[in-house]
Amino acid sequence: METQTILIKNTSIIDREVKKGSVLIENDKIVEITSDNTPTNADEVINGEGKCLIPGLVNTHTHLSMSLMRGLADDLPLDTWLNDHIWPVEANLEGEHCYVGALLSALEMIKSGTTTCNDMYFFMDDVARALDEAGMRGVICHGMIDLFDEEKRKAEFKETLRIIEKCHNTADGRIQVSLGPHTPYTCSPELLNWVRKKADEKGLRIHIHVSETEKEVDDSLNERMKRPFEYLEDLKFLGPDVLAAHSVWLSGAEIALIKANKVKLSHNPLSNMKLASGISPVSDLMANGVCVSLGTDGAASNNNLDLFQEMKMSSLLQKVRKLDPMVMPANKVLEMATINGAAALGMENEIGSIKVGKKADLVLVDMKAPHLTPYRNPVSHLVYSTEGADVSTVICNGNILMKEREVLVLDEAEVMARAENAAQDLLSRN
Amino acid sequence: METQTILIKNTSIIDREVKKGSVLIENDKIVEITSDNTPTNADEVINGEGKCLIPGLVNTHTHLSMSLMRGLADDLPLDTWLNDHIWPVEANLEGEHCYVGALLSALEMIKSGTTTCNDMYFFMDDVARALDEAGMRGVICHGMIDLFDEEKRKAEFKETLRIIEKCHNTADGRIQVSLGPHTPYTCSPELLNWVRKKADEKGLRIHIHVSETEKEVDDSLNERMKRPFEYLEDLKFLGPDVLAAHSVWLSGAEIALIKANKVKLSHNPLSNMKLASGISPVSDLMANGVCVSLGTDGAASNNNLDLFQEMKMSSLLQKVRKLDPMVMPANKVLEMATINGAAALGMENEIGSIKVGKKADLVLVDMKAPHLTPYRNPVSHLVYSTEGADVSTVICNGNILMKEREVLVLDEAEVMARAENAAQDLLSRN
Repeated sequence: METQTILIKNTSIIDREVKKGSVLIENDKIVEITSDNTPTNADEVINGEGKCLIPGLVNTHTHLSMSLMRGLADDLPLDTWLNDHIWPVEANLEGEHCYVGALLSALEMIKSGTTTCNDMYFFMDDVARALDEAGMRGVICHGMIDLFDEEKRKAEFKETLRIIEKCHNTADGRIQVSLGPHTPYTCSPELLNWVRKKADEKGLRIHIHVSETEKEVDDSLNERMKRPFEYLEDLKFLGPDVLAAHSVWLSGAEIALIKANKVKLSHNPLSNMKLASGISPVSDLMANGVCVSLGTDGAASNNNLDLFQEMKMSSLLQKVRKLDPMVMPANKVLEMATINGAAALGMENEIGSIKVGKKADLVLVDMKAPHLTPYRNPVSHLVYSTEGADVSTVICNGNILMKEREVLVLDEAEVMARAENAAQDLLSRN
Repeated sequence: METQTILIKNTSIIDREVKKGSVLIENDKIVEITSDNTPTNADEVINGEGKCLIPGLVNTHTHLSMSLMRGLADDLPLDTWLNDHIWPVEANLEGEHCYVGALLSALEMIKSGTTTCNDMYFFMDDVARALDEAGMRGVICHGMIDLFDEEKRKAEFKETLRIIEKCHNTADGRIQVSLGPHTPYTCSPELLNWVRKKADEKGLRIHIHVSETEKEVDDSLNERMKRPFEYLEDLKFLGPDVLAAHSVWLSGAEIALIKANKVKLSHNPLSNMKLASGISPVSDLMANGVCVSLGTDGAASNNNLDLFQEMKMSSLLQKVRKLDPMVMPANKVLEMATINGAAALGMENEIGSIKVGKKADLVLVDMKAPHLTPYRNPVSHLVYSTEGADVSTVICNGNILMKEREVLVLDEAEVMARAENAAQDLLSRN
């Protein structure tokens, strides 16, 4: 393979501290960071003046293909939303829908600065194909639901093993596969035990929804006198390889369990607000040293995939929850969307910060805009003032996915047209 | 004056219901709305295909010139923020700073679809000049603070009367002046009584902050055994011409007073979250028939002026406050930012909806974007998926302020450069 180099010069590099300088990329890696702007030869030179360079954002909980259901049903109770709208549509899903929905989501993520996502859904080989074509990094898992039925369980094991076999560690290592038990209440203990065993055997990570709603906790207490994380602890399911999404309703004892087992969390503030699930005690979790990352959930309950919105709201929602404007300062929030996201996926040595030797997953954000003027504190601007459309250039694994708002890896108009058609086709089947 | 006509054709007109059609503007007014796309002659024809046409958004509480303090200080307790950062800077403000800050804010508002704002600050003739140059509509008031001191009070009366004399009903009627007592705790009863008398005499509206923080309510109870709205009712201050900003901490009795006096409210969810003020009981207020509109507050506590963010968050914050996903549906939220905003400023017969005879304050939002695909329910998309940068074309009073993202009324680069300089100058004075 021939060496390819990209130089991003004369920019504000944001990585815990802010420094002016240049970043040199060789193939898929960051190889040099200089504080001056000494010209360096490179195959491609990107002028970063007036821009901030941040690590590619990491979305640790989403259902990409659900973008086809964006705006399908809003402002409804969760059971009506699921029973009357989402599930009937999902029953008709085919691989092509999931592929096109994931392509649409990849396009949206690139345009708002996300380079890595953690996805749970169905037809995951089709989702992997979309992420590969989009040049993104992703951890994917088949969402396993057995409803305590042995036949269903066997089918879920089979599909999970098929996806691992077909997709794990593909696309130059950009695509990884994890194990995706849906929730502690839709999965039997047998399924959860199998997942723990396979994770240990194969060194795979686990992605699961836990304690999204108060009802889930109440049902768990009624059924077995245990809260969801207590139940998972009894099964010896918890560990540092587990990423639990949502985790809204937590007791102090559960926070202690999460901490002791080094479980990683994906906080999804906009989805939790829109579905009226509740407010996760994120500032308390972080004060306890728990690794909390950020996710958008699917576009059907958000209704977009913009991590800049999640950053701003994760901070503002905790401030108003605690009636304390000091909690969740901007620098901590930016870490949630970058290095914490990387750590939540076990990739903290590869991505999530701008360091020599790390993968070149980098995003330039244009700071020359009225809503980002005056230019004073870039981290504050990134968290409190920026929107997805301010993202200018996106690089993943050393490849330029978008340059000055022009997406190079996908035909934007074609993807949108295909998504419209796929959404119409899907709805026409009901 | 020669007749000027603009035709916006082949678009989705959003006004309570969604209909395809065309809108004809003659000078400052909407003169025809047709459901077909019969070509009509016009001096300028704008193709609205793939876009939604909405009423220009109305921001009912802001401090435009504070954009110069954007990102100056975040994540701090309110008293530290005010005492150590905002007030020392404000002490050095001159008219030129306020003019340039207001120009910057006008630019930001235009680029995110706001055509009318309700501003309270200082050097308001300079703010009026900026809004006039930007082609926007605004209600402005001098923020009056006497701290129970007679000399200060006289100076505030003088400045208020100067601004009324100089600015009221200027710029072809686009600029109106209101009376701006800052709060019930920074203004004496004498000041508040004078304001009520002048409002009645001159037919001017009143703009005041009430019950932003719990401390304000506690202090009021300690001092006079009355909550803020109860105190204002005792003074016979309340009425349908009063717009109260924030109104976060309200008792049931105060909600009844607000309703009985037809007081209008400006809800500022992002500022209330960021400063950790609290969550206003907006869904309860609206269920009681109170007119609640939306405001951004100043950019220093937000940190932007994007009403699309306020719309989304006003809905999501109430849903999670009530743990009910059905409260504050998208169509009600869009009304808050349009017709309710107009009503809050006494302009419901002039602006806030798309009707023949109303002023041509109109905004085209581009719906061809990955995060707005599939195009299914435009009102849901506008509230839950759109961001300010999706605004394409903005018309105020029949004049095109921005066309396909190009601002026609201001030199964008020049305004940003002047704002950087003014912010540096202001900070250098400390």
